[in-house]
Amino acid sequence: MLQAALRSGAASRRCVFETFARRLPSGRRYGVLAGTGRVLDAIEDFRFGPEELRDLRERRVVDEDTLGFLADYRFDGDIWGYAEGETYFPYSPVLVVESDFAHGVILETVILSILNHDSAVASAASRMTGAAGSRPVIEMGSRRTHDEAAVAAARAAYIAGFSSTSNLEAGRRHGVPTGGTAAHAFTLLHESEREAFEAQVASLGADTTLLVDTYDVTEGVRTAVEVAGTSLGGVRLDSGDLVVQASEVREQLDALGATETQIVVTSDLDEYAIAALAAAPVDTYGVGTRVVTGSGHPTASMVYKLVAREDDEGRMIGVAKKSKDKQSVGGRKYALRRRNPLGVVEAEVLGIGEQPVGDADDRDLLVRLVEGGEVVGREHASLEAARARHEASVAELPRSAHQLSQGQPAVETVFLTDTP
Amino acid sequence: MLQAALRSGAASRRCVFETFARRLPSGRRYGVLAGTGRVLDAIEDFRFGPEELRDLRERRVVDEDTLGFLADYRFDGDIWGYAEGETYFPYSPVLVVESDFAHGVILETVILSILNHDSAVASAASRMTGAAGSRPVIEMGSRRTHDEAAVAAARAAYIAGFSSTSNLEAGRRHGVPTGGTAAHAFTLLHESEREAFEAQVASLGADTTLLVDTYDVTEGVRTAVEVAGTSLGGVRLDSGDLVVQASEVREQLDALGATETQIVVTSDLDEYAIAALAAAPVDTYGVGTRVVTGSGHPTASMVYKLVAREDDEGRMIGVAKKSKDKQSVGGRKYALRRRNPLGVVEAEVLGIGEQPVGDADDRDLLVRLVEGGEVVGREHASLEAARARHEASVAELPRSAHQLSQGQPAVETVFLTDTP
Repeated sequence: MLQAALRSGAASRRCVFETFARRLPSGRRYGVLAGTGRVLDAIEDFRFGPEELRDLRERRVVDEDTLGFLADYRFDGDIWGYAEGETYFPYSPVLVVESDFAHGVILETVILSILNHDSAVASAASRMTGAAGSRPVIEMGSRRTHDEAAVAAARAAYIAGFSSTSNLEAGRRHGVPTGGTAAHAFTLLHESEREAFEAQVASLGADTTLLVDTYDVTEGVRTAVEVAGTSLGGVRLDSGDLVVQASEVREQLDALGATETQIVVTSDLDEYAIAALAAAPVDTYGVGTRVVTGSGHPTASMVYKLVAREDDEGRMIGVAKKSKDKQSVGGRKYALRRRNPLGVVEAEVLGIGEQPVGDADDRDLLVRLVEGGEVVGREHASLEAARARHEASVAELPRSAHQLSQGQPAVETVFLTDTP
Repeated sequence: MLQAALRSGAASRRCVFETFARRLPSGRRYGVLAGTGRVLDAIEDFRFGPEELRDLRERRVVDEDTLGFLADYRFDGDIWGYAEGETYFPYSPVLVVESDFAHGVILETVILSILNHDSAVASAASRMTGAAGSRPVIEMGSRRTHDEAAVAAARAAYIAGFSSTSNLEAGRRHGVPTGGTAAHAFTLLHESEREAFEAQVASLGADTTLLVDTYDVTEGVRTAVEVAGTSLGGVRLDSGDLVVQASEVREQLDALGATETQIVVTSDLDEYAIAALAAAPVDTYGVGTRVVTGSGHPTASMVYKLVAREDDEGRMIGVAKKSKDKQSVGGRKYALRRRNPLGVVEAEVLGIGEQPVGDADDRDLLVRLVEGGEVVGREHASLEAARARHEASVAELPRSAHQLSQGQPAVETVFLTDTP
């Protein structure tokens, strides 16, 4: 595409590319945008170095003119987007790139890869933290997803309200709080459960969490309190019927005087399992596989579409594919979140042309992220800001957004143009 | 865990860790192991540099003794495994690590991340190439998965029989053949479809693939042949009822004299959609989202378990968690694929202790990958060898393995010990 457009001259036409999801994953009420900060980093670093150029030349992927373009490549256009952590709905233009064709088209894969992955994780994570209420949720899914995706997943889950991650690299690279627990291997390494607990408490103090289900839970809890005393930080349950077990363990801990000892539950939890444990005396949830794989929806299925371009006379015109099953709406858009006077969201309003003004309850959604190739909106994609934004954005959604059952998007997307 | 074990001295105990899946994803007949080559690279490179150590110190994640251990960390143990591309079944010990506890336990996350991701993709890809028969399948899912996972997914899909990928970095880094097509944006960039096709053919020659469904397919095919002539390489269909459309387009191409022009179909294909197109005149499939997300099963759910360790007297003993729902089998194992005299697989035979000898139809599955920290089995994890192995391994499975319908694993896993 790039080579052909460079040759025909069309590569220099001004274009608007829009990133959006045509629909939410089946049954979901809202999506959570994550990855914007990683997108900004990726665009700043998007270069073709000597090794990449040599490879493309040797394998004859593109011609010399195109190699020359790639060697000099620096993104020089403008980018707007929803701030990171913001909720989104079908057709929400979460990232909008304006540049010439060549500079914009080449970013498609990296932008979509990041936003599709990170938003899938954040969208699932948001349902889990919603179901958990005020109880903390720890992300511990690194081992069930790609080695680098694990780091990004920890970041995305934190944005959507997870309290911490077991991925230390996510702590180092992104500043996500980290924590962890011992595995069954640690208990099995020792001659007895007691010996394992003694080793852990000797090294980490009584304020640690002991894994009590390697052999027999009742025995494990008794031994744990004997070894660590009643100031034991927590016990972890990783198997069995957690609802029943949590109650039994709570009773046992209280009877032993360990009334402050917390109960951490893990074991293939998802938002439904968390909701089912709402009445159980659980203090903390650990979630692995289901959050890093998007709880059944591992991609947000966003697309990156050309929606407007310069015509032969230099005017910008809206363009769209004519297809029954893949609808796009041409033209550069504005995006507003329409709220009622109580602050509850009523609609996602998208339109082309003049943005309606004057309604104080409308919230403008697009912020400037990149201007002439320079990142200018880093503050809209910082980790803590995104986490706070997610919380605020979810809080203003109508109540139906918080239902875990299958349903329609919580608010409707309204187009203020005659094309749907 | 590491800190407590270093302090108690248990860290130096010889251990065997086994990587296996307790079950295949629901309904699947077999799994395909991928990622071994990436695991070997990761273990060779597994180091804690100044930045990582500084971060762990500043955030007080571990104590000074542990930091010292990490600073000197080099894996020094032995690793056996199934060769890459091999099929696997429940409990198949696809990667076995023997070392002291400290050196082995620390590799858990990186080994599982790589094998769980890559094997999930390869297992799904294998069903797709099986359904496609002799027709080539192109991997084009980069935009729907994490940016780095995309590169690994292209590699894993190629091992499982995909012909090429649209991910250029997978070509550079791993040697996967690459290819691509134009997107709708390229057509929309131009004043007309004809102008777009002319630009593409001018740059890439008539032997290119033109995307014909941006406006009207019949019109698009006519224009494509007018522009490129009857030697047009291919047309791509990316929407609509592909079964009906492929037949119509084939008839139209033949009537126009473009009898050699191929039909490439894309649009959310998976193994079922590919199978449904078996009777349609399709030449090549392009698969995106569904292969990179494991076609409904984005992780292989493998675990890394301590199965044997040195006891106080220095003897190796088998260990296993006692849990009803999470069974493990203690002890270092052998693994054989039992075949009947016709070469058809009858069972996955796992056992502890002396390996049965003398049956010429049994195939030994574990190969030496790492010895005393040195990679010695790189040839068992090279890309082309893995691709050939996948083909041979799938070919010897019983016919039921090739059914796409939900079912049991194609062969049973048999334990030649008294523990299940």
